[in-house]
Amino acid sequence: MVNISSENSGMVCDIGVIGLAVMGQNLILNMNDHGFVVAAYNRSAATTGTFINGPANNTKVIAAYTVEELVKQLKSPRVVMLMVKAGGAVDDTIKQLLPLLEQGDVIIDGGNSNYSDSQQRSIALDQKGIFFVGAGVSGGEEGARFGPSIMPGGHPQAWPLVKDILQTICARTKDGSPCCEWVGKNGAGHFVKMVHNGIEYGDMQIICEVYHFMKALLEMDNPSMQAVFREWNKGQLESYLIEITADILAYRKKGFSLDLILDSAGQKGTGKWTVFNALDFGTPVTLIGEAVFARFLSALKQQRTVAADILGGPPGRLDGGDRERWIKLLGEALLASKIVSYAQGFMLMQQASDEYGWALDYGNIAQLWRGGCIIRSVFLDDIKSAYVRNPELNNLMLDEYFRETINRAQTAWRKVVAKGVEHGLPLPAMSSALAFYDGYRCRTLPANLLQAQRDYFGAHTYERVDQPRGERFHTNWTGEGGQVSSGDYNA
Amino acid sequence: MVNISSENSGMVCDIGVIGLAVMGQNLILNMNDHGFVVAAYNRSAATTGTFINGPANNTKVIAAYTVEELVKQLKSPRVVMLMVKAGGAVDDTIKQLLPLLEQGDVIIDGGNSNYSDSQQRSIALDQKGIFFVGAGVSGGEEGARFGPSIMPGGHPQAWPLVKDILQTICARTKDGSPCCEWVGKNGAGHFVKMVHNGIEYGDMQIICEVYHFMKALLEMDNPSMQAVFREWNKGQLESYLIEITADILAYRKKGFSLDLILDSAGQKGTGKWTVFNALDFGTPVTLIGEAVFARFLSALKQQRTVAADILGGPPGRLDGGDRERWIKLLGEALLASKIVSYAQGFMLMQQASDEYGWALDYGNIAQLWRGGCIIRSVFLDDIKSAYVRNPELNNLMLDEYFRETINRAQTAWRKVVAKGVEHGLPLPAMSSALAFYDGYRCRTLPANLLQAQRDYFGAHTYERVDQPRGERFHTNWTGEGGQVSSGDYNA
Repeated sequence: MVNISSENSGMVCDIGVIGLAVMGQNLILNMNDHGFVVAAYNRSAATTGTFINGPANNTKVIAAYTVEELVKQLKSPRVVMLMVKAGGAVDDTIKQLLPLLEQGDVIIDGGNSNYSDSQQRSIALDQKGIFFVGAGVSGGEEGARFGPSIMPGGHPQAWPLVKDILQTICARTKDGSPCCEWVGKNGAGHFVKMVHNGIEYGDMQIICEVYHFMKALLEMDNPSMQAVFREWNKGQLESYLIEITADILAYRKKGFSLDLILDSAGQKGTGKWTVFNALDFGTPVTLIGEAVFARFLSALKQQRTVAADILGGPPGRLDGGDRERWIKLLGEALLASKIVSYAQGFMLMQQASDEYGWALDYGNIAQLWRGGCIIRSVFLDDIKSAYVRNPELNNLMLDEYFRETINRAQTAWRKVVAKGVEHGLPLPAMSSALAFYDGYRCRTLPANLLQAQRDYFGAHTYERVDQPRGERFHTNWTGEGGQVSSGDYNA
Repeated sequence: MVNISSENSGMVCDIGVIGLAVMGQNLILNMNDHGFVVAAYNRSAATTGTFINGPANNTKVIAAYTVEELVKQLKSPRVVMLMVKAGGAVDDTIKQLLPLLEQGDVIIDGGNSNYSDSQQRSIALDQKGIFFVGAGVSGGEEGARFGPSIMPGGHPQAWPLVKDILQTICARTKDGSPCCEWVGKNGAGHFVKMVHNGIEYGDMQIICEVYHFMKALLEMDNPSMQAVFREWNKGQLESYLIEITADILAYRKKGFSLDLILDSAGQKGTGKWTVFNALDFGTPVTLIGEAVFARFLSALKQQRTVAADILGGPPGRLDGGDRERWIKLLGEALLASKIVSYAQGFMLMQQASDEYGWALDYGNIAQLWRGGCIIRSVFLDDIKSAYVRNPELNNLMLDEYFRETINRAQTAWRKVVAKGVEHGLPLPAMSSALAFYDGYRCRTLPANLLQAQRDYFGAHTYERVDQPRGERFHTNWTGEGGQVSSGDYNA
């Protein structure tokens, strides 16, 4: 640990990190482990002191107690990474930094910023000659400490300046590829991180649903469920979230176990952003939507407790039944739901990539997520392979491997969802995924009726199956309405 | 029809309407029918001319070809109603009007504006002494012409000035009550209209789902389905949307029928706004969410056509089976889903009312929707009764009538959803509603695991069932993570 004073100040640091919450601290220690010299600053000096005299003791990390001090420590071109709270704090910090930086310096925002903020910051800083990088960082505290997945986007000229450090501290796949590659210009990195988080919401929710099924319908205890997750973690479902679920089910200390945790979920917005954007782009990201809503519903703990006494339902357990068989079916249902969820997430990225000209490389993105991040899994190798097989793949579900996997799993999937329906066990995400699958492969949806309704009450017009696309028709259904189209009226 | 010239100008008009698309035209004719003298203006003079020499021929409507002309025609305090496209056009028109109006004059925005715009306009115009009314208007062209549902909110002092005209032109319930009552301050009217439209999305989607079930699984033809909807329209399901569905199924002209309409749904945003706001308020409005996503999915017609040839599924019809029995079950499933959808919509309004201090009167709102609007139904009488029975009702599903209705219907509901699942027929909204019902009445959701996962990878902390609410705990699950909480990291 080095405390800076006027005597020993100098341009010795490879990077400056602003923001010493757990993610910032751990990224710094990670950088330090790899030989980078880091200057560290936090708005509250106490935090800086605690860090520098605690976790950063016996490191080469240099504490800075003002932003000026921090910048003075940096080699040129300077690289400053922000690990502050997304939103106004990022803008405030950039504002503080700007007078201290020179053309060609780089600001990395490693927080969970909204991609549209990153779009704007990238463009605004470009005009000042500062290169902006909006870098999604995933992996929680563990990942930050020992190798996160990093999704950098922003000004393409920044990439050569930060590539070495970011690709050194990031996670690696089994074959040694870094889980950090340039994603695309402007906000692309944070967009991909946002979708990552949305998918994380989905993965967590479907795991919770199979847990719920095992606990409530199969009446399994924690050790038995733990064994199932351990087993699943050896096959196609192998993933960080399955692994930690097993750990959690196994955890027992002074009588404490998972069962003592209140079933009221929090959320900090990134899942919800995915759904916002899905709505904006017109992409049906139903599974993540249900996952976000499931958290909201769980948070209504008090209302649910009241309702549980009042609202009736069928018996909430299976009578007898073959537990082993159901466990097998659950694993398949989980896998099939997961394929749908990722297919939806990639649909959203495709939409955004087309809209913003990011030219996203989907196989690459699968690889970024292969290690370090919360959703890391062998499953992502399969996605990578799908895009290697066919870089123009229109939808993950159409890839031969995923198609066949769903096909094999679908009987089980339908059995599990139907069983939940029959026994009053809520499986919002898994059933939504199934409805999506059936809708996606449905040649004729009932939207013809919906269009007729809209035309009936609002003269919204419709297209016809026997006429070219784009030609619009209106029927005066009752013989009473006008012939005008409802141009300005929305519905 | 009166064309205005400098000689005959004078303050003769009760109201001025700006915007002569179908909704504006029909509202004007409606006002005229009731003896109000209306000045009409449209940005394009051609439209004004066509209207005034066409539909408004032989009326007392006065054409204005500039905003100045329009304002000059108005009695004081002047009331100007905007029927222009939501968004910038409203602001532009207000800007044009402001120099021409005096303190105490009223601007009504009768378009489908975003309620937060109405919030801001209400506050901004208040500062200039102009009373703003953001009035949701529903009923499509028919409603506008012969009596819409009107949901006015804004500056409370405006209400006495516009009450007479709005309550005269609006729809009425069977007992003669107007489907127009003051909703609340600022953006309350447009918020309630937005929720109305979201519920409309939900109602349309669940009707489409039962239609899909009858058409695909029961292999019914249009006349048979028409008969079912006619029958339903005599009971608890009686509603405008059921009625027009029957009309649509019956419609046949020169070989044209519903089957020739392309199954690709459009939307103009108000359903999506409801979901946006649900996300913002943390309210699990799942059914409307699925309804919006179902429209998106239907619009991917080309992808679906490709997928239909590639993705497999179970046989998409019932073999044999008792058609009459299934029709009965479908009606019950539809009713139960509808209760959930309205319960969610009212949850969202409660949330917003608490947030903004609107003090919404839910029984009143049910009555506003009872006539004129797209979702009008006898069902809304039942909602009104529920809130009369208990104005403090926390959730519609907990009301004794709705509780018992769901309870009676739930076996059917589960059978229908399970049948769809088994036969590969997508029922996204009905199955989502069922999952919500089962989640809402679930004493212990699996969110304990979700909270454990979040704490595991992000130190997000959790509450415990054996400790007071609000106290937060963190477990160092692996024995390796730090003890710090991840304050600034989001997930």
